[in-house]
Amino acid sequence: MPSPDPTDPAPALPPGADLGLLSPVRAGSAVEAATGDVAFLQAMLDAELALTRAQARLGLVPGSAVPAVAAAARADAYDLPGLALRARSGGNPVIPLVADLTAAVRERDPAAAGAVHLGATSQDILDTAAMLVARRALDLVLADLDHVVDDLTRLAAAHRDTPLPGRTLTQHAVPTTFGLKAAGWRSLALDARRRLAAARDALPAQLGGAGGTLAAFHELAPGKLAPGDPAGTDPGLRLLAAYAEETGLAEPVLPWHTLRTPVADLGAALAHTAGALGKIAADVLVLSRTEIGEIAEGSGGGSSAMPHKSNPVRATLLAATARQVPALAAVLFGSLAAEDERPAGAWHAEWQTLREALRLTGGAARDAAELVAGLVVRPEPMRAHLDRTQGLIVSERVRLALTPLLGAAAAKKLVTDAALRAATEGTSLASVLASAPELADLPPDRLAEFTDPAAYLGSAGALVDRALAADRADAPHPTARQENP
Amino acid sequence: MPSPDPTDPAPALPPGADLGLLSPVRAGSAVEAATGDVAFLQAMLDAELALTRAQARLGLVPGSAVPAVAAAARADAYDLPGLALRARSGGNPVIPLVADLTAAVRERDPAAAGAVHLGATSQDILDTAAMLVARRALDLVLADLDHVVDDLTRLAAAHRDTPLPGRTLTQHAVPTTFGLKAAGWRSLALDARRRLAAARDALPAQLGGAGGTLAAFHELAPGKLAPGDPAGTDPGLRLLAAYAEETGLAEPVLPWHTLRTPVADLGAALAHTAGALGKIAADVLVLSRTEIGEIAEGSGGGSSAMPHKSNPVRATLLAATARQVPALAAVLFGSLAAEDERPAGAWHAEWQTLREALRLTGGAARDAAELVAGLVVRPEPMRAHLDRTQGLIVSERVRLALTPLLGAAAAKKLVTDAALRAATEGTSLASVLASAPELADLPPDRLAEFTDPAAYLGSAGALVDRALAADRADAPHPTARQENP
Amino acid sequence: MPSPDPTDPAPALPPGADLGLLSPVRAGSAVEAATGDVAFLQAMLDAELALTRAQARLGLVPGSAVPAVAAAARADAYDLPGLALRARSGGNPVIPLVADLTAAVRERDPAAAGAVHLGATSQDILDTAAMLVARRALDLVLADLDHVVDDLTRLAAAHRDTPLPGRTLTQHAVPTTFGLKAAGWRSLALDARRRLAAARDALPAQLGGAGGTLAAFHELAPGKLAPGDPAGTDPGLRLLAAYAEETGLAEPVLPWHTLRTPVADLGAALAHTAGALGKIAADVLVLSRTEIGEIAEGSGGGSSAMPHKSNPVRATLLAATARQVPALAAVLFGSLAAEDERPAGAWHAEWQTLREALRLTGGAARDAAELVAGLVVRPEPMRAHLDRTQGLIVSERVRLALTPLLGAAAAKKLVTDAALRAATEGTSLASVLASAPELADLPPDRLAEFTDPAAYLGSAGALVDRALAADRADAPHPTARQENP
Amino acid sequence: MPSPDPTDPAPALPPGADLGLLSPVRAGSAVEAATGDVAFLQAMLDAELALTRAQARLGLVPGSAVPAVAAAARADAYDLPGLALRARSGGNPVIPLVADLTAAVRERDPAAAGAVHLGATSQDILDTAAMLVARRALDLVLADLDHVVDDLTRLAAAHRDTPLPGRTLTQHAVPTTFGLKAAGWRSLALDARRRLAAARDALPAQLGGAGGTLAAFHELAPGKLAPGDPAGTDPGLRLLAAYAEETGLAEPVLPWHTLRTPVADLGAALAHTAGALGKIAADVLVLSRTEIGEIAEGSGGGSSAMPHKSNPVRATLLAATARQVPALAAVLFGSLAAEDERPAGAWHAEWQTLREALRLTGGAARDAAELVAGLVVRPEPMRAHLDRTQGLIVSERVRLALTPLLGAAAAKKLVTDAALRAATEGTSLASVLASAPELADLPPDRLAEFTDPAAYLGSAGALVDRALAADRADAPHPTARQENP
Repeated sequence: MPSPDPTDPAPALPPGADLGLLSPVRAGSAVEAATGDVAFLQAMLDAELALTRAQARLGLVPGSAVPAVAAAARADAYDLPGLALRARSGGNPVIPLVADLTAAVRERDPAAAGAVHLGATSQDILDTAAMLVARRALDLVLADLDHVVDDLTRLAAAHRDTPLPGRTLTQHAVPTTFGLKAAGWRSLALDARRRLAAARDALPAQLGGAGGTLAAFHELAPGKLAPGDPAGTDPGLRLLAAYAEETGLAEPVLPWHTLRTPVADLGAALAHTAGALGKIAADVLVLSRTEIGEIAEGSGGGSSAMPHKSNPVRATLLAATARQVPALAAVLFGSLAAEDERPAGAWHAEWQTLREALRLTGGAARDAAELVAGLVVRPEPMRAHLDRTQGLIVSERVRLALTPLLGAAAAKKLVTDAALRAATEGTSLASVLASAPELADLPPDRLAEFTDPAAYLGSAGALVDRALAADRADAPHPTARQENP
Repeated sequence: MPSPDPTDPAPALPPGADLGLLSPVRAGSAVEAATGDVAFLQAMLDAELALTRAQARLGLVPGSAVPAVAAAARADAYDLPGLALRARSGGNPVIPLVADLTAAVRERDPAAAGAVHLGATSQDILDTAAMLVARRALDLVLADLDHVVDDLTRLAAAHRDTPLPGRTLTQHAVPTTFGLKAAGWRSLALDARRRLAAARDALPAQLGGAGGTLAAFHELAPGKLAPGDPAGTDPGLRLLAAYAEETGLAEPVLPWHTLRTPVADLGAALAHTAGALGKIAADVLVLSRTEIGEIAEGSGGGSSAMPHKSNPVRATLLAATARQVPALAAVLFGSLAAEDERPAGAWHAEWQTLREALRLTGGAARDAAELVAGLVVRPEPMRAHLDRTQGLIVSERVRLALTPLLGAAAAKKLVTDAALRAATEGTSLASVLASAPELADLPPDRLAEFTDPAAYLGSAGALVDRALAADRADAPHPTARQENP
Repeated sequence: MPSPDPTDPAPALPPGADLGLLSPVRAGSAVEAATGDVAFLQAMLDAELALTRAQARLGLVPGSAVPAVAAAARADAYDLPGLALRARSGGNPVIPLVADLTAAVRERDPAAAGAVHLGATSQDILDTAAMLVARRALDLVLADLDHVVDDLTRLAAAHRDTPLPGRTLTQHAVPTTFGLKAAGWRSLALDARRRLAAARDALPAQLGGAGGTLAAFHELAPGKLAPGDPAGTDPGLRLLAAYAEETGLAEPVLPWHTLRTPVADLGAALAHTAGALGKIAADVLVLSRTEIGEIAEGSGGGSSAMPHKSNPVRATLLAATARQVPALAAVLFGSLAAEDERPAGAWHAEWQTLREALRLTGGAARDAAELVAGLVVRPEPMRAHLDRTQGLIVSERVRLALTPLLGAAAAKKLVTDAALRAATEGTSLASVLASAPELADLPPDRLAEFTDPAAYLGSAGALVDRALAADRADAPHPTARQENP
Repeated sequence: MPSPDPTDPAPALPPGADLGLLSPVRAGSAVEAATGDVAFLQAMLDAELALTRAQARLGLVPGSAVPAVAAAARADAYDLPGLALRARSGGNPVIPLVADLTAAVRERDPAAAGAVHLGATSQDILDTAAMLVARRALDLVLADLDHVVDDLTRLAAAHRDTPLPGRTLTQHAVPTTFGLKAAGWRSLALDARRRLAAARDALPAQLGGAGGTLAAFHELAPGKLAPGDPAGTDPGLRLLAAYAEETGLAEPVLPWHTLRTPVADLGAALAHTAGALGKIAADVLVLSRTEIGEIAEGSGGGSSAMPHKSNPVRATLLAATARQVPALAAVLFGSLAAEDERPAGAWHAEWQTLREALRLTGGAARDAAELVAGLVVRPEPMRAHLDRTQGLIVSERVRLALTPLLGAAAAKKLVTDAALRAATEGTSLASVLASAPELADLPPDRLAEFTDPAAYLGSAGALVDRALAADRADAPHPTARQENP
């Protein structure tokens, strides 16, 4: 709704804010909210609280510190734009946040202030926050991909035997089915889903202290902790385990300040997902062209006054996403080459890049779900287009079918000549062949059969059946068939 | 300052907003503000107003429409988050904005409502807005680069003859000067500056109408416009010229809906700039290592209690930027391959990508200006490091200098043996050579001269002089020397 | 032709060789030959010879050394695969090449052996060689782009007024002309041409010696060179000027071992070119689809027996190139951030990347020239497709044309209702409007005129005219119109 | 060895050939040979032979055809450069290869010629060949990674307790151990290994026929194949299973002409590997700097006359690779968005890109194995550098240790003041503290202990132990710790 009332201006927005105006693919999506600065801020506070809780469990800080930290760990109590500005001097937002959090805790319980961020380093908090944000975002993405898969299952089953032209290098090749096309989309979506789910389940907490040795926690350990603890007697490892438990994230074997597999894996899985959805979009964009019109995005366009103006908007946004996320993933892969115990640049290059990859891909998953749910499939033009080339779309079959009768060479010549005549005279291959003396003995129904595009679908149906039988929980590499499908 | 007072919460921010928390390189910068959603919204309104003005000049709309449009074309009167959401259905933000702008104009002057966006297409407005934003942003970037160049001019002149080890593949090679290093940084910054300035000056307005033919403006032209107009009699071209003039942008030869040179050029110039600043950062990061300490970022770190904790934060953020912008430029280059009269995806992929490239690079320019302005240069450790390899850093020179005396083979053998002894005994190459019988006749001061690293600087000073003489206004390819410098 | 005769085997190829089997876009092209390993090897030898010549001119080496070096500087005399292997230990191919070149010179003239590579560093030779290769390759690319531009000039002029549907987001929008489309392609090709030509003309020689100070040449300078020389008295600068002259490349202001503007510029210009040709390809791929068939690649497909099998092969290879080169350019931009006086990795990442960008783009230019030269344009289907939407393609015009008669609101309603009826009844918009009572007074020829798609072309012709008037030699930013075109 | 003998020229190499001269990282490596054009040609022939074998098994072609095809399927019998040239007209090398193979088979057995490539499409052969090449290449890469892991296991164990400065943002932070650093490298190498191994095991055969429906094989099926076959009665699926078995590759659920998960997965795993090795290189480059010298590449440099000239060449080449492969992976991710049943460009963009990613990464694995095997570790300078900051490297610990004695505020002030004095006076933190009245009661050995950098290693040893216990066969996400390690 328009709101240009100058007497009641909207509250001033930070002038540099990005609110999604240039990114409709994710504007207003749940994943956008889950990856915004507020969400990151909250996740940093969650990480700080998890640290305090874990330290309290092990006796490194008094248990009484927990309630004060918990009460202060609410994002809406902080001056977010101010934190962003103050992040500049140290190069990361955790430094000013710790100052503010400490002050907020001190207000509540002066004795608890010393427990804040004790022995941790900024990267412990920022990395853990990024993993928490990623997990929350991926849960949303996975749910949308489930919708995509469900609707594609429906479409593939419904159109298991709906024929349309198979197209290669933009030209009609041989017939295929829309069911097989949808089953392929579904297969790619499942590939993406499995990669995202695997990356999600492995998202680790981060805790290493200033140099990744957890040394400060040894200094803090009262009596160096009692032996006999099931997690071992090393106080650093015990804290790491407790901290991971508090965050709900996986426990890493090593602090991973400069072992960036989790971030690279996220980048790869997100680029895979953006690409998989981009394949669906690429096909939708072709098939909904004005001259083709075999499918349409359903959002109101189907029966409106100007069907030709019904732009494939969702597909367009998916296509745009598929052009962007691979480049972001390349940046994340590039950050694997991170020197020292904390790199000067490689780490910092990940933050915004990962966030953008998450929200672009998450928005694309939402839009893909909408696209697939509303997709209008039009079997009539599909069928009509099979005849667009006057039978040439089945010339491969005709040649193969006539080879036993005429020999390979004669069959090839007959079909080539007939195709030329059909194209020149604007008639069909079948009618030209019907008058060929060499085929005088061929029963008319046999000729009709092998010049019928809809009868040359090969294994399309069987492929759909077995693709749909492949479950979401399959092995991580679904392109490979299982032993016992 | 901390503001965690729950009794006085900050106004709720849009949950998905990006306010710079993850991007300290640009947080709070002028270029961030110039490229935020508010700035883009204002630029779209500026484009609409320029269109109305141009059409009024040519009589396509009544002149009386201009004040109403001008009054309504203020970004703060619109519900920006709402526009972002409503952009989803059509895939771009201009569609809902035109609706809101029309309503706002109608409130002021019902007769003027029909003049809004007349004959234009969304891309005309969005592309023009992007160019306006880019121009404003580049002006800021250029100003910061000027500061960088000025300070590097100062540093190069001041340290024209300050020797330090030249390093290749991480190892000491031969001596160089800090002045030559600074002159090189300056040269790269000038290269970037020239590319940005050229791209800025060429930024074109966009106007083509629905399909790039300007056809609607022909239909609107009263009496098809009178002949004799200096800009020709074609109403489309006349409007294009007037519109460009109103925007202050260059007039394109053709509508460039799918001829994306301006955007690709921006991407290239920004990536060049990010890389040029990244070179400065790469050197700063090396030279400020704890073990090297030849320079330091000046921000307070110089005399503080813990100099080793003075992180090179600005350089770190520049290095992070140099890792990100090339990937964004690749996306923009990729969007050159844009099908039809408006592509389904390639265009949409540009928006956020270009904005991010502008603000990352712009933030980097600000930080580079701060970095260079405050850079602490320490000639003493530079000089000390020249002796780090006990004279091996000048072994090239010693060999060359002894060749006329001893012949090439003997000179090489003598230097190699002496270097080995120097390294083994922990003494200097000069002292080993001083006791060599072959050199008994060599005057001691001659030996001292050619084993003095500070005396083996070649053309370093002359190179600094001529590099500093190169002016900012030089030809677009400054690496190439002019005929008459 | 097949050559599978096991009794006469082809000579064994190096097992790891890349001969173009996976890169048909450049297989057999002149640019492939100009950028192969043999060409790089020859260019390195050319660089060495240029150094010796320049040093002889300045008296740093005896003039008698030149003939021996010249005679030895022939690539076919070297064991190229062996050099590639031996490049491993030092990390670059110049080191073993200098050893071999020195040996070859010594065989001819023992006294000349000492003159080889004197005072130079590997990077001086490899960078100069890369620039020589780039210059030779770009000359070929520019020539092919000239053919592209010439043929597009012809096509744009010939089809200045050939109407076809303008398409946006895959859907028919308003009519345009094929001439305008071709003029746009030409404009982009000219943009690319200018960027390549500017990069070519600026390609600089490289000479800095071990650390970029030219110090060794000072040591070698006899009597430190006489004053009064026009190029100044600094022996390093004098040699640099002479060396650049011998190579025919531009003289750099500074040695650019870690100031990589020339390489980044090449990457940008090549990515621009690949993208520009990719735009042509994107349109060809759409317009030659089986259902559209408005154009076709001419290579034999036009009149053959199976027109539907005539794949747009050239366009396909161009499209593939446009997907690859931007990523290579990103690597080159990334190498701007090069630490020290010679970086450990950034430089080495450029070599193969630049070569691949040159040959992919060069091959694409060749294929684009072939594509454009043979392009079959079919005005009949173009015209027919204008009626594909039963007149909806001109609904914008009809609405605008009726607005003065009926008022904006009534005009919009009438057109919307009529369009709905036309679509529902499968009739044309014109016939529905002809029976509208509101338009009873409208002369039939007026109605026919403004529902005729071919009469709604706006400035298309005028735009073609002015685009074709834009000359190749125009300013570097051709999208911007000149003051006096 | 030099071979510049003009009387005995080397056989002329194809002028455009790439023999590795510009890519020392892979020159002469086994993976280079395994991915060269000859290897690809052989793999295409292997795919053709596998198809004939599979068809013979199912009775689609006579079994007698197999020996003739097998005899002709030898790469060295073909004119490879000629094939590359002839690939241009159809856009892929399979088309001319099938012609040559058919001719070669016909020479041996005319009746077998009809069995060649029967019912297949070019993409079936090229994709299968790419997977065969990838499998062979990955086996080599995995073997080299095994060497890397083995040597890192050794290094991590040997230096489990060797202290050195931990460095963050280029500055000394707190102590760590070289064992922990090596264990981290090993962990990343294992991450890469697992991703590569998973991708390798999933590499699928490709077979779909012209449009991915396997339709031609239905037409060829004699009697449509007998029911009761264990693989089902669908002749297409039966052939697909048999073909996959013949190739030794996995059987895909669906033909994957435009479902490019296998190629995207390869890109991701290779980029991960290049990045993981790039991390090792980044650290080696820092630690072997002239001023640091804590480690050195072992190749001859360790005890030579000029240790400072011993360039870290292997690390340099690894660093260069880590800059290139992510960009190649981005191209491969981009090709997921592939329209239709065979895309016009996305597929073609994969070929050279995938090959380059394989050979760059494979070469890097070889070089990493050499690097790690020969790495010289120098505990003495590591230990010495711990004192470089006069104790400031343990200021965190001192503050924590004094907090129970003095309270947090007083402890912080004491340490800050002492650190300032130590830095100013060039003395050590320990000696300043020793004279502090507040610490008069502290036993000297306690003070010595907590100012000893080598005593502040936290969990470093325990982390090494548990990292080394992690086996290669671990779950695919090794950063996440297993429940029962």
